[in-house]
Amino acid sequence: MSVLFFHTMRYKQSDPENPNNDRFILSRGYAAPILWAAWTEAGHLSGSNLLSLRKSVYDLEGYPVPSLSQRLSFVDVATGWLGQGLGAACGMAYTGKYFDKASYRVFCLMGDSESSEGSIWEALAFASYYGLDNLVAIFDVNRLGHSGALPAEHCIDIYQKRCEAFGWNTFVVDGRDVEALCQVFWQAAQVKSKPTAVVAKTFKGRGLPNVEDAENWYGKPVAKERADAIIKLIESQIQTNKNPVPKPPIEDSPQISIMGIEMISPPAYKVGDKMATLKACAFGLAKLGHANDRVIVLDGDTKNATFSEIFKKEYPERFIKCFIAEQNTVSMALGCATRGRTIAFANTFGAFLTRAFDQIRMGVISQTNVNLIGSHCGVSVGEDSPSQMALEDMAMFRAIPNCIIFYPSDAVSMEHALYLAANAKGMCFIRTTRPKTAVIYNPRETFEIGQAKVVRHSDNDKVTVIGAGVTLHEALAAADDLSKQDISIRVIDLFTIKPLDAATIISNAKATGGRVITVEDHYPEGGIGEAVCAAVSKEPDILVHQLAVSGVPRNGKPDELLDMFGISARHITAAVKRIVIN
Amino acid sequence: MSVLFFHTMRYKQSDPENPNNDRFILSRGYAAPILWAAWTEAGHLSGSNLLSLRKSVYDLEGYPVPSLSQRLSFVDVATGWLGQGLGAACGMAYTGKYFDKASYRVFCLMGDSESSEGSIWEALAFASYYGLDNLVAIFDVNRLGHSGALPAEHCIDIYQKRCEAFGWNTFVVDGRDVEALCQVFWQAAQVKSKPTAVVAKTFKGRGLPNVEDAENWYGKPVAKERADAIIKLIESQIQTNKNPVPKPPIEDSPQISIMGIEMISPPAYKVGDKMATLKACAFGLAKLGHANDRVIVLDGDTKNATFSEIFKKEYPERFIKCFIAEQNTVSMALGCATRGRTIAFANTFGAFLTRAFDQIRMGVISQTNVNLIGSHCGVSVGEDSPSQMALEDMAMFRAIPNCIIFYPSDAVSMEHALYLAANAKGMCFIRTTRPKTAVIYNPRETFEIGQAKVVRHSDNDKVTVIGAGVTLHEALAAADDLSKQDISIRVIDLFTIKPLDAATIISNAKATGGRVITVEDHYPEGGIGEAVCAAVSKEPDILVHQLAVSGVPRNGKPDELLDMFGISARHITAAVKRIVIN
Repeated sequence: MSVLFFHTMRYKQSDPENPNNDRFILSRGYAAPILWAAWTEAGHLSGSNLLSLRKSVYDLEGYPVPSLSQRLSFVDVATGWLGQGLGAACGMAYTGKYFDKASYRVFCLMGDSESSEGSIWEALAFASYYGLDNLVAIFDVNRLGHSGALPAEHCIDIYQKRCEAFGWNTFVVDGRDVEALCQVFWQAAQVKSKPTAVVAKTFKGRGLPNVEDAENWYGKPVAKERADAIIKLIESQIQTNKNPVPKPPIEDSPQISIMGIEMISPPAYKVGDKMATLKACAFGLAKLGHANDRVIVLDGDTKNATFSEIFKKEYPERFIKCFIAEQNTVSMALGCATRGRTIAFANTFGAFLTRAFDQIRMGVISQTNVNLIGSHCGVSVGEDSPSQMALEDMAMFRAIPNCIIFYPSDAVSMEHALYLAANAKGMCFIRTTRPKTAVIYNPRETFEIGQAKVVRHSDNDKVTVIGAGVTLHEALAAADDLSKQDISIRVIDLFTIKPLDAATIISNAKATGGRVITVEDHYPEGGIGEAVCAAVSKEPDILVHQLAVSGVPRNGKPDELLDMFGISARHITAAVKRIVIN
Repeated sequence: MSVLFFHTMRYKQSDPENPNNDRFILSRGYAAPILWAAWTEAGHLSGSNLLSLRKSVYDLEGYPVPSLSQRLSFVDVATGWLGQGLGAACGMAYTGKYFDKASYRVFCLMGDSESSEGSIWEALAFASYYGLDNLVAIFDVNRLGHSGALPAEHCIDIYQKRCEAFGWNTFVVDGRDVEALCQVFWQAAQVKSKPTAVVAKTFKGRGLPNVEDAENWYGKPVAKERADAIIKLIESQIQTNKNPVPKPPIEDSPQISIMGIEMISPPAYKVGDKMATLKACAFGLAKLGHANDRVIVLDGDTKNATFSEIFKKEYPERFIKCFIAEQNTVSMALGCATRGRTIAFANTFGAFLTRAFDQIRMGVISQTNVNLIGSHCGVSVGEDSPSQMALEDMAMFRAIPNCIIFYPSDAVSMEHALYLAANAKGMCFIRTTRPKTAVIYNPRETFEIGQAKVVRHSDNDKVTVIGAGVTLHEALAAADDLSKQDISIRVIDLFTIKPLDAATIISNAKATGGRVITVEDHYPEGGIGEAVCAAVSKEPDILVHQLAVSGVPRNGKPDELLDMFGISARHITAAVKRIVIN
């Protein structure tokens, strides 16, 4: 880190978020071992720089910094748990090489422990495939993991062979040899079309008696007296008082804006048109791509099923094929979105985003600005196995603090959701549906985050039925059926599941005698039903009846499955009648 | 598959679940391409075997089989989404080699697409580290993914180098050369201490005009006429009517039982003792290990933090170090648990189980019998970064159909939870807490799944407070505070979050004027609060007030964080007073 921060990297110390700066990602987990390493290796630095280095390390890790936002002001991505940094680094390097076409380079410091995480190998495969020669990954091979020795211990050649097999230019160095490090980082910058891995052999607690290379020091405090002695020992090794200043960046990142994106025209659908929101999403992404040239789409080898190929056809240079590697796809998106360089949309099956739950939760700790699209939600997927149906995705994304969840019910609201997501800060999740649904909104209808729509309404409504996506259309069909039997119901389209429009729900529930039915193409836990139950939990006299998919489904025709799993118009009609008769 | 099923593998066709059978895992996703491959390559098989092969392929994939349980009667693990098979295969092979010490071998057929998934590389690293020479992975390299060509296309040497770098004995073959396949599978059986990878070059739709090696045939039906012609073409290539019969298995798997495990003695704690449930869990696992010698523990390099090292010390031969690779750890556990060969407990930080959400949801589709322990839940973790605090784990596991969720509040209930989990069928999740909590139950107290405990109770209770884990103790402290102010409250310990004891909640809520407060060390979404809201949603006059961790936390002292994030005794006391005064 000393060599990187004060010799190799080009950046403005006073402006850590400058888009021209080289990027540094601390992928390995905790501060302590890094701090030891920095202290023990940084003998060539002055005392004040040592302190500043010590401070940066601490700050990067977030330990003594009181406020998260303060901490994040100069951290591009939080890593914390292992194996996530390199994917984000790939996103930054891809952005630098292909979108910014700029000189900045990306350095990712990794531990050997985290090389057991599969996500690292997804990222390694990705980086070499795309020839990310602006990316350097440093493997700090110190032999020791959290609770003991690692499988490869100090067998540096294992790391070397694996990195080479994954297509990386690989250097092996002594991790405490400052000159050798300076040299390999320089050499890495000369290599074209290949990322560089620096496999550095190191020892934890180097030079400290009874600590060096010993197990069981992980996360353990050193007694004050001993710590003082250690600091003294280190300070005695400082040979110079030079105050090295980093090289300034090359200022060739383009000036761009990702703010205030406007619809170039209203949605080109008319009421009654039939289109899957999944497909409307694909058309909408292409339109959004026209509105701002920093809109990018990341695909997990599902472009023929999500129709992301529509975007690819129009903007091949802004389409990233990420193959079947959802963890890396999400980490990439986080990396691409850092420093506001792109508006990133990652699009794959909602079910497969479960693979990236850890990356998603960490993304929010990073205060990321990324958009994730989950297609093929629920049993309405139909002729596919249950493994392909997202039935737990709303539970997952609702448990992400401040995540905005869009669940559009027609092509018009779908297009609006995309524009709202593109302009929203933070993480957005958009849930899309495979079967065709009728357009119900006028193209000039306005939509807002957190604003539900009352789509069926009379003065004599007996029950409020709340749906979204395919179940909204089932609710509307039920309303038609019931009206023939002189029972009128109110129907609400939630549009955003989070934030939930509690006010609209409560006022309409009260207007319909406190009777509410929720109906969702999702498991009962953590989805629309529970969100509504929680929203009305302090309201006396509002009762909520949940219709949801209970139990693992099977494959079949969409309509059959909606009915078999209790969320079809027929079930809504029956539930309404039961409630009204009681 | 023809070679495996009718030449290499040893198994009883009539008894697919026989513990002595060789295992076959179809890791690659869908039926269609396999079916093509089988049809086109299986020329040496008779028509009836072709049909049976075709049936097995279909059945394994679950397409035309009506009932899931029927399908699962001979499928050890559902795969469906990619990259999950090899980890489960590792679990089976590890069990065969180290626990059963038996002759059965494990074969895993994988696609090239799924080699982009990091989970594959976790499994490859694991298998070579443990010298699983009873494991064969076949990479079916047909160049084509779901939506286009793969990064490595037909560059077989890339697969070869990577497998070799990951320590596997690797053979390259023409995937349609039956004799070569017979030979490499034989050779693989002679190799000691290394797993074998068979990298097979294949072509999708081999021999079919305009289909072979062409893109855009993924998941597309062939017109009836054309399909008939293709079937005719294939049938014309069948050269023999021999009806090959698989070789019988070697019957050397030990007879074991994992049923009816009883506590060897009551928990050795007395009321008032202080112990973290995290640590009580570790002691409990060791005790469980004594009760049945098929109890195993899988560790994700956190054994010093979860105290799994206690089990390791007593039963080193039943402790599996899985390193920092949570996806593989969970897949391993699924694999170890198949055919009732072990009672597997995987133990790591609850936050890190998010990494394996996809494996967890697929595990339930497999009707697995596995136990997952998530430690370090909530902000009560204290001096660690938010990345280490499980705050979304209950949302995740609640959305898993039929998953049993234990959340014990003291050492006694913790030990009971382990015995109940060991005896329960299906997936169990156990949530454990880091800070010490007082023992509140008598060691002879009985516990049942789905049965909450009323732990504080008087005839004059004004509010029911529902907690679990650390918040139960905050609720008890609040009850003590309030009693000094002459306000008595009822306190419920949920014990299991799923199934939820709705009857106990509702009856006590009614007895306390319909006033309920939930308090949980978890985000508000998908946890205890919403579970309770949903459980009482059809009850008029029960109002629920949720206390939960809102927003991304920070690190600090446990007590400070409980208070800062609104779930301490002080906040419960304040909430009770607000409610009672209103």
